[in-house]
Amino acid sequence: MAIVKDFIWEKGIKVHELVSAYGNIGFQSIELSKAADLIVKMKKNSAKIFLTFTSNMVTSGLRGFFAQIIRLGMADVIVTTVGGIEEDIMKAHGEKFTIGRFESDDVELHEQGINRVGNLFIKNESYMNFEDKIIKILNELYQKKKRWPVSELLKEIGLMLDDENSILCQAAKYNVPIFCPAITDGSFGFHLYLFQQKHPDFIVDVVKDFGNILLSTSHDEKKAIIALGGSISKHHAILCTLLNGGADYALYMTTAHKTSGSMSGATTNEAKSWGKVKDDSDIATVIGDVTVMFPLAMIKAFEELDSEGLLKK
Amino acid sequence: MAIVKDFIWEKGIKVHELVSAYGNIGFQSIELSKAADLIVKMKKNSAKIFLTFTSNMVTSGLRGFFAQIIRLGMADVIVTTVGGIEEDIMKAHGEKFTIGRFESDDVELHEQGINRVGNLFIKNESYMNFEDKIIKILNELYQKKKRWPVSELLKEIGLMLDDENSILCQAAKYNVPIFCPAITDGSFGFHLYLFQQKHPDFIVDVVKDFGNILLSTSHDEKKAIIALGGSISKHHAILCTLLNGGADYALYMTTAHKTSGSMSGATTNEAKSWGKVKDDSDIATVIGDVTVMFPLAMIKAFEELDSEGLLKK
Amino acid sequence: MAIVKDFIWEKGIKVHELVSAYGNIGFQSIELSKAADLIVKMKKNSAKIFLTFTSNMVTSGLRGFFAQIIRLGMADVIVTTVGGIEEDIMKAHGEKFTIGRFESDDVELHEQGINRVGNLFIKNESYMNFEDKIIKILNELYQKKKRWPVSELLKEIGLMLDDENSILCQAAKYNVPIFCPAITDGSFGFHLYLFQQKHPDFIVDVVKDFGNILLSTSHDEKKAIIALGGSISKHHAILCTLLNGGADYALYMTTAHKTSGSMSGATTNEAKSWGKVKDDSDIATVIGDVTVMFPLAMIKAFEELDSEGLLKK
Amino acid sequence: MAIVKDFIWEKGIKVHELVSAYGNIGFQSIELSKAADLIVKMKKNSAKIFLTFTSNMVTSGLRGFFAQIIRLGMADVIVTTVGGIEEDIMKAHGEKFTIGRFESDDVELHEQGINRVGNLFIKNESYMNFEDKIIKILNELYQKKKRWPVSELLKEIGLMLDDENSILCQAAKYNVPIFCPAITDGSFGFHLYLFQQKHPDFIVDVVKDFGNILLSTSHDEKKAIIALGGSISKHHAILCTLLNGGADYALYMTTAHKTSGSMSGATTNEAKSWGKVKDDSDIATVIGDVTVMFPLAMIKAFEELDSEGLLKK
Repeated sequence: MAIVKDFIWEKGIKVHELVSAYGNIGFQSIELSKAADLIVKMKKNSAKIFLTFTSNMVTSGLRGFFAQIIRLGMADVIVTTVGGIEEDIMKAHGEKFTIGRFESDDVELHEQGINRVGNLFIKNESYMNFEDKIIKILNELYQKKKRWPVSELLKEIGLMLDDENSILCQAAKYNVPIFCPAITDGSFGFHLYLFQQKHPDFIVDVVKDFGNILLSTSHDEKKAIIALGGSISKHHAILCTLLNGGADYALYMTTAHKTSGSMSGATTNEAKSWGKVKDDSDIATVIGDVTVMFPLAMIKAFEELDSEGLLKK
Repeated sequence: MAIVKDFIWEKGIKVHELVSAYGNIGFQSIELSKAADLIVKMKKNSAKIFLTFTSNMVTSGLRGFFAQIIRLGMADVIVTTVGGIEEDIMKAHGEKFTIGRFESDDVELHEQGINRVGNLFIKNESYMNFEDKIIKILNELYQKKKRWPVSELLKEIGLMLDDENSILCQAAKYNVPIFCPAITDGSFGFHLYLFQQKHPDFIVDVVKDFGNILLSTSHDEKKAIIALGGSISKHHAILCTLLNGGADYALYMTTAHKTSGSMSGATTNEAKSWGKVKDDSDIATVIGDVTVMFPLAMIKAFEELDSEGLLKK
Repeated sequence: MAIVKDFIWEKGIKVHELVSAYGNIGFQSIELSKAADLIVKMKKNSAKIFLTFTSNMVTSGLRGFFAQIIRLGMADVIVTTVGGIEEDIMKAHGEKFTIGRFESDDVELHEQGINRVGNLFIKNESYMNFEDKIIKILNELYQKKKRWPVSELLKEIGLMLDDENSILCQAAKYNVPIFCPAITDGSFGFHLYLFQQKHPDFIVDVVKDFGNILLSTSHDEKKAIIALGGSISKHHAILCTLLNGGADYALYMTTAHKTSGSMSGATTNEAKSWGKVKDDSDIATVIGDVTVMFPLAMIKAFEELDSEGLLKK
Repeated sequence: MAIVKDFIWEKGIKVHELVSAYGNIGFQSIELSKAADLIVKMKKNSAKIFLTFTSNMVTSGLRGFFAQIIRLGMADVIVTTVGGIEEDIMKAHGEKFTIGRFESDDVELHEQGINRVGNLFIKNESYMNFEDKIIKILNELYQKKKRWPVSELLKEIGLMLDDENSILCQAAKYNVPIFCPAITDGSFGFHLYLFQQKHPDFIVDVVKDFGNILLSTSHDEKKAIIALGGSISKHHAILCTLLNGGADYALYMTTAHKTSGSMSGATTNEAKSWGKVKDDSDIATVIGDVTVMFPLAMIKAFEELDSEGLLKK
């Protein structure tokens, strides 16, 4: 049985060394260390990795990290919410988000045309510039065909972008499908609606896209979930793997707790109830803010996989 | 300025008396008391009320309460997630959910064909019976037309049900639209997909439905949100009221905190940044489990509105 | 196995009826309903009840409720923190606390001489008046003897007060000892220090008081804990019952989660590891704000015990 | 205004580089980055630093880190709870704690003589060995004098230990006082009680020790608080700095939220209400598990202070 070890700082300590040390500290540091090991295990066992995240993480600087994850071959399927897609497109067109405070004066921000997401700020202007782009994009898509499953539409948009830090761009380039089960739940939805008013034969086919995610994997393939935060992005990946016989590996990272029966707080023990997950080394739940926790676990996994030549070049 | 008052139990104390007393106790009890007052204010000022909840609340016994809320005229628009819709239909067909434990042995539950949602249990059998129903329902709908906005489809299903405690049934009866922006994110989605495989011209038109929720209210009308839990149901209602000039009243009830920048934990102060909410009496955020908190606030509002003849008969 | 039941409001519903209904709703409402049953069970089985709470609950209007609980014979031993003792004394001398807002401007409050505890306000003046009283009290105590175990000192103070809503007063009257393991951790500690400067032979004997709590019960007696919030008040009661063979019943009510290994978030499953608690009907953990949750559970228990004549008259 | 930057992993990234990058990511990562800057600021401005932590952190491997912090001159006053003191002594005598699971079978653990603290395990044997030591220690102390303020007693114990990773040992060596306002709230208290039974003139003088912490700083000196977790350790440091005119810098790191009015969840905005804290650069609140968060912030500060020669050699 592993032993609690006194942690001592050594000058110039690297992230992967700290995450290793976490494994002998206690509480969530141990769970975080397990998470890193689990990511390595997923990859070594050639599981198809479903990475899910909510839009606030794309608002944050994790966006470029997700793009890098795709590039390095550590995500095979993405599920997210539409806000993140909008913001990825904004940033790909040069919009800058700024750092503010949780305790801002929201009335004052409103007067300045600033929208707050926690301690991050997005200007109204960024949304307006996005609108200009999206109208052109929809026109181009409509020229190609009238009926679009969501993931195919997002791939087309990704192909129009040229940004190494863009999730959509990199996903399109590396053939990683992006699913977004509630595509209308944002500014994007409003513009789809306006476009359809002019072009009634324009259809976003969410039902067809359910088939796409369902067929993105199979019963025979090993399947892994890395769910960051909760919401439908997490649920959708679980649902898809469940219909394919259940996930073999599941890592949940969230601030939500299981006590209110919510999807956001549901634990990986559920994964066991699916009957596929075999033992405790195949699941991990880390409670904490993803912007701090996820880079730590992922960097540790990257370093280890890299040293074994298991990252895509 | 209101004073903290020592609370004393009196035999036979009623719920609305306790919630009144909460207003002078402290911490979340005060916020809960404000929530009750805010619900009364929404109604008295004839606001259009958007009620949003997540599917775990329909798993719980709040389902019948939501149906009653519709019946009594306290919800004009519903936004929810598809799991809740499935379970409402199951229960309308007589399925029973049982009460278990948070700390169940999930491997054992799996062997018994039981699915756990927190401390509630749903049998696989209930899902199988649901599947039988849904196939018939889709066939009937397809006879009527090929292209369905989600809320219209849900209304048709509601009209097929006969259950005073069914959300879909009562909503259909009282002309309250139900929006579900991620209709495919559940067992329902799987059956839509199978159906579309046989009938490729069958279309679920989420874009058209965005127009429906957008036009369910207007800039001129007063608008109120009661958001229970987070997720896209909360976000969708906020988005719709925002596009109509902003909500006048906003009550959020959740276990999530604002510290991770998530939608679930976003506070009503945001409502102020929209520029419509005028003062503190128009917003309330209650932190706590909805299954305990919401009945308390709503019952207090019901008793008060009833005594003034403001509930629908 | 119990079944989830649709909850329906009936006009004039009483608190104990709602808490009964909670038992068939879901998530924390079920745990709250179990908590009420557990309190009844403790009393029916004649357990010695250790009630613990933190000082913020005495800041709130729960103070009078705790006094009533003592009066009705539902608490045999109290453990709390010194802030609550100070505020109980303030209120017994007529000080009024007011209701403010969580989002107050703290700089402005400071200028107004107002101290904030969440959404409650305490004036500096109340502290100053307390100081006048406490100096007189210490002088009186010193006349009687020089070396005081904490609980004996608190009893003496209680006997000097005349307030039906005072915890100290009612506890003294009904011979319920109040333990406070960190008596110096507040304004009270500062005045003890100033007093001892003048009277070096004045001693507060915390070690002797540990003997007092230890001997307040025995291995033979059935023991129950109702721990509201965390901190040392919770820990001290657990420690004392543990040294007496372990608690037979344990109810924890808190907003803290177990995931960081803290005392505040430690669950009642620990009670099982003590080896005394026999089955699940003997423990309950309710996650939520005590100011809302505790009155609900306690009122339900009061009504049931009262109908069976088990409350002290 | 700072800009959100896409984070990209670079091979071999160091901890302090990651924490710098956190400053441009979002949500708690930004607050964590501020925390690191604040620690540097405290030190550069020669503030007297009050470091507080709860006993579960000493159960964890942070114990050696705290000892190192003392050695490097980054803590001038320590406030903690008695459980941590007991465990520090156990470990200094060679006891090993092991790593288990949050979801352990507590009944089984009890049969094996294992005590669980979150996902860490402590053997009964370790407690028994501790008891042997403590009896000898108390005898030695009693030979020296009969009346002991807590911090003086803890310093004597520290001087008896020889362990570079021991908090008590290093604190004694470097003249850093350790305050523990509830010294009886643990196994230690039980042995103090047994000892006093034999030696009634043995006194632990908590009142005198309040004077010691009060005089450990002054109005003129700059004062800083690093409060890890909540409980009385946090409160005691705040109280002492408040009585000395208020802290100039305050860093709170906790999993608790402010919504229930608890001390654990109280924010650093309170520090502003004291009237000493001047602006936002002087306070920081980080929400998250201390075992992950604190090493990150402290390592970043260490690296920066070390490069400027500001760490004690």
